[in-house]
Amino acid sequence: MTRIVTVAAAQLGPIARKDTRAQVVERMLALMRQAKSHGCDLVVFPELALTTFFPRWYFERQEEIDAFFEREMPGPETQRLFDAARSLELGFYLGYAELANEGGRTRRFNTSILVDKTGRIVGKYRKIHLPGHAEHEPWRRFQHLEKRYFEVGDLGFPAFRASFGAEGIFGMAICNDRRWSETYRILGLQAVEVILIGYNTPVHNPPAPEHDALSHFHNELVMQAGAYQNGTWVVGVAKAGNEEGVEQIGNSIVVAPSGEIVAACTTTGDELAIARCDLDLCASYKNTTFNFARHREPAQYRMIVERKGAIPPD
Amino acid sequence: MTRIVTVAAAQLGPIARKDTRAQVVERMLALMRQAKSHGCDLVVFPELALTTFFPRWYFERQEEIDAFFEREMPGPETQRLFDAARSLELGFYLGYAELANEGGRTRRFNTSILVDKTGRIVGKYRKIHLPGHAEHEPWRRFQHLEKRYFEVGDLGFPAFRASFGAEGIFGMAICNDRRWSETYRILGLQAVEVILIGYNTPVHNPPAPEHDALSHFHNELVMQAGAYQNGTWVVGVAKAGNEEGVEQIGNSIVVAPSGEIVAACTTTGDELAIARCDLDLCASYKNTTFNFARHREPAQYRMIVERKGAIPPD
Repeated sequence: MTRIVTVAAAQLGPIARKDTRAQVVERMLALMRQAKSHGCDLVVFPELALTTFFPRWYFERQEEIDAFFEREMPGPETQRLFDAARSLELGFYLGYAELANEGGRTRRFNTSILVDKTGRIVGKYRKIHLPGHAEHEPWRRFQHLEKRYFEVGDLGFPAFRASFGAEGIFGMAICNDRRWSETYRILGLQAVEVILIGYNTPVHNPPAPEHDALSHFHNELVMQAGAYQNGTWVVGVAKAGNEEGVEQIGNSIVVAPSGEIVAACTTTGDELAIARCDLDLCASYKNTTFNFARHREPAQYRMIVERKGAIPPD
Repeated sequence: MTRIVTVAAAQLGPIARKDTRAQVVERMLALMRQAKSHGCDLVVFPELALTTFFPRWYFERQEEIDAFFEREMPGPETQRLFDAARSLELGFYLGYAELANEGGRTRRFNTSILVDKTGRIVGKYRKIHLPGHAEHEPWRRFQHLEKRYFEVGDLGFPAFRASFGAEGIFGMAICNDRRWSETYRILGLQAVEVILIGYNTPVHNPPAPEHDALSHFHNELVMQAGAYQNGTWVVGVAKAGNEEGVEQIGNSIVVAPSGEIVAACTTTGDELAIARCDLDLCASYKNTTFNFARHREPAQYRMIVERKGAIPPD
């Protein structure tokens, strides 16, 4: 038996601050049409895919910040993506900045949605591992103010049954989530078969420039390990290239449950990498080395939830 | 500032069932003398280093099994290793089968110890992630009866302050533990700077022979990810080669906190791989990308301890 989901990692090149959502959506529609011509079932776009990566700037005025957020999904400019999903019979993952009114207050999240081939939203995730900082740090060549502009996601790491060519169990994560083994494990504990991850990752990390030369290596390492250790496909998709003077890594990849990279983008522009993902390959790992019910020892893991920061021994 | 611990991954080639402990200890002493001649501070031996990997056989008689266990440490044959530690001023990590009388009953663990340059045991660990199976499975080309012959370790994943050339924080794991992200994270939450891991890993995995060609890749992947995601050195050391008809991977490696492999064995025999490990390199990761106190979200991780096996969504 095989359950094939043909996935397109739809990398986006840079988006300038002056670019309109309509212009970006046009580029995304072009990628969706290309993906359809290659027989794809599911297109994966990056994190915050509709605008430039705005947390690189410190804004004082809330309305400047909110201009990068979506108040509804679909909204006036994004409706065309949902229409295309329906007409092309092609699902998509989309990352965007979400402005919600919940419990009588305005809330802001770094969000992704999973949309099926009928244009229906079948899953939603709000980013949990917000990187960067909350205060203006003028010494940096650019800011990374996600801790200022977003709340920590409040939906957990949910997994969803959905059908894209074949029925499977899908999970989502966003950017920095992919560096944390907990992300993959919590999805793995829900028997996830495909994890979709959009990201915006600068090559240069101002607090640790000594890591810059390893940015591709680290990007691949964490997704390959997360895939193997949970017997799941992982699709990682970048917003790439020189965006407003900041170089961002591309390196969009599709990783098999073996941990092997089976498709990859090679540019830092708009580009598709396509893989036929057989969801039944997951079982080979989930039923043997990573048969959690046989081999995990959760009674020994309590420190993971009882401690946030590291505490050295006496 | 630098805190250099010069580590030797002391890989062992096969040990036959007929080999005596005295013969094995002689090989280990030779590796210790070599390590000393290269200015090493710490020698890391494999899992169950004193005998052949006996869980590959099904034994009915308990005395046959117990013949592979140590009743005291140091014991008559292992005392020479402790004497060499003291005379050479060279620490070591040793894996062995431990038979203990505790609470009025006999207990058996897959154990490792950390011995300092004065020959004193400064840390002990009992393997938590026992792989394999508990019942005889005659269809296998060889058995992997760790779940039959050992109890799950009861010491947690402790980290220890110790001094080998420089003072640092050391943790231990054994073989299959290295495939589980929880192992590294729990040690990472104790600010570990070096994780020592001995292993015996057959190339052939009877329940999943389709993974055999990837055994080196998976071995490296899990240790590289564990190192990077916790900003720690990892030293992985094999018992290697064709042991009683079973091919075992070598691939002993030293991994930096960057995730990069900085030293490796290339044979499947007795061999040293040496690395000067600067423990201060850990801080670059622990204080930035993997600053746990800033970036972890333990309230979101409860499923890791509340659930053992995977449960698919409705």
